[in-house]
Amino acid sequence: MNIDVAFLPQQLEQNKLEDTLCIVLDIFRATTSIVTAIAHDCREIVPVMTIDEAKETAAEATSLLAGERHSLKIEGFDFGNCPFEFSLDKVENQRIVMTTTNGTIAIRATDQAAHTLIGSFLNAAAVSQKAASYQQDIMIVCAGTHGEFSLEDSLCAGYLVSLLEAANEKIELSDGAYGAKLLYQQSKDQLLAVAKRSRNGRRLVELRKEAEISYCLQQDVLTVVPEYREKRIFLPKN
Amino acid sequence: MNIDVAFLPQQLEQNKLEDTLCIVLDIFRATTSIVTAIAHDCREIVPVMTIDEAKETAAEATSLLAGERHSLKIEGFDFGNCPFEFSLDKVENQRIVMTTTNGTIAIRATDQAAHTLIGSFLNAAAVSQKAASYQQDIMIVCAGTHGEFSLEDSLCAGYLVSLLEAANEKIELSDGAYGAKLLYQQSKDQLLAVAKRSRNGRRLVELRKEAEISYCLQQDVLTVVPEYREKRIFLPKN
Repeated sequence: MNIDVAFLPQQLEQNKLEDTLCIVLDIFRATTSIVTAIAHDCREIVPVMTIDEAKETAAEATSLLAGERHSLKIEGFDFGNCPFEFSLDKVENQRIVMTTTNGTIAIRATDQAAHTLIGSFLNAAAVSQKAASYQQDIMIVCAGTHGEFSLEDSLCAGYLVSLLEAANEKIELSDGAYGAKLLYQQSKDQLLAVAKRSRNGRRLVELRKEAEISYCLQQDVLTVVPEYREKRIFLPKN
Repeated sequence: MNIDVAFLPQQLEQNKLEDTLCIVLDIFRATTSIVTAIAHDCREIVPVMTIDEAKETAAEATSLLAGERHSLKIEGFDFGNCPFEFSLDKVENQRIVMTTTNGTIAIRATDQAAHTLIGSFLNAAAVSQKAASYQQDIMIVCAGTHGEFSLEDSLCAGYLVSLLEAANEKIELSDGAYGAKLLYQQSKDQLLAVAKRSRNGRRLVELRKEAEISYCLQQDVLTVVPEYREKRIFLPKN
């Protein structure tokens, strides 16, 4: 089993993903919010690229709208991108159409993959177990920030690599996977401090969202593994 | 002063480099070989993209030809890409036209930059001093390997970030720069072992070039800082 990390979704263009399982990470905050929503029995989340596409897609069936631009909720939408918003009373049995600056783009970039799992620190252990069970090559996809390297996504990628390597024999790490693992090892005892120094971390501190930062960095507190298939994210029954 | 790291030259497309100083790294082995050649009083090195362009450019003036494809010397060329080849007796006062798989592409990707310095572990301290003296934003450009993340280039990027941060106040690190620094910190006490596990490191071990790996990882043993200006690399007199 080969494990690779794409630090930016743009790197995926040159890869053929049809035999690859992808794990998408946008820690601050799209995939953390998605995992939270699915843990609260949200029926499905449809990731879309633009605000217009979100409104059109929402019109197809009873839906709530979620999305942010520049870390702030889009006007008229039901949710922004804060995981705390996706509470049980708001999302249970709902269909949510979501557009975010980086996360939904990264998810859609895996349309050609054999499988796509939605990851985060919250469900990392469950994701790594599920991913390994497919017995396919794994590509961990960091959403990045506006096409640039994002520290918190790369840290979570390194955590996933560590988990996969610890639990599975015969694993081959690419340079990207090995680099992410080393980055995580150096940071794991000061994860909160490192993440707060990241670009998105500083932005969230400015917005007085430190509680959210802490929430997003909790490791292995949820066991749901949302999958993305045929343009929608849901919890498979198997 | 802002410091950023592009883990791949492709990331540069979206950046405007006209007010930025670039430091290009291709540790295994193009920039290590260039620094070695310039330390041996090579007059200039002209980086080109293709074998045909190399032959055409060499025909313009008395020149030697250097280049590799798949880590091996190009047939009929005077040099491959091994730093040991660029000895004083071979390169002193010579003009060399060079084409390599990743390094020369990365150098040419900085054509629009305010300044471009050629870096390596060998001359890292000198490069970081010279770079800081320009008082401009710095972009460290990792050559990567066939468009993928390269561990050894990223390690050297992290070493440069550490040096720049230690010597200069008021430095702002991007997520990429901070990530590279953390990666280097985790690896610095086992640099040779980590680099040998990288994709290019394993390839060089297979080719029985372990002595070259060790050479390329020596820190701060040369003081030359080659610059790339108007399509050629040389040691400026100032």
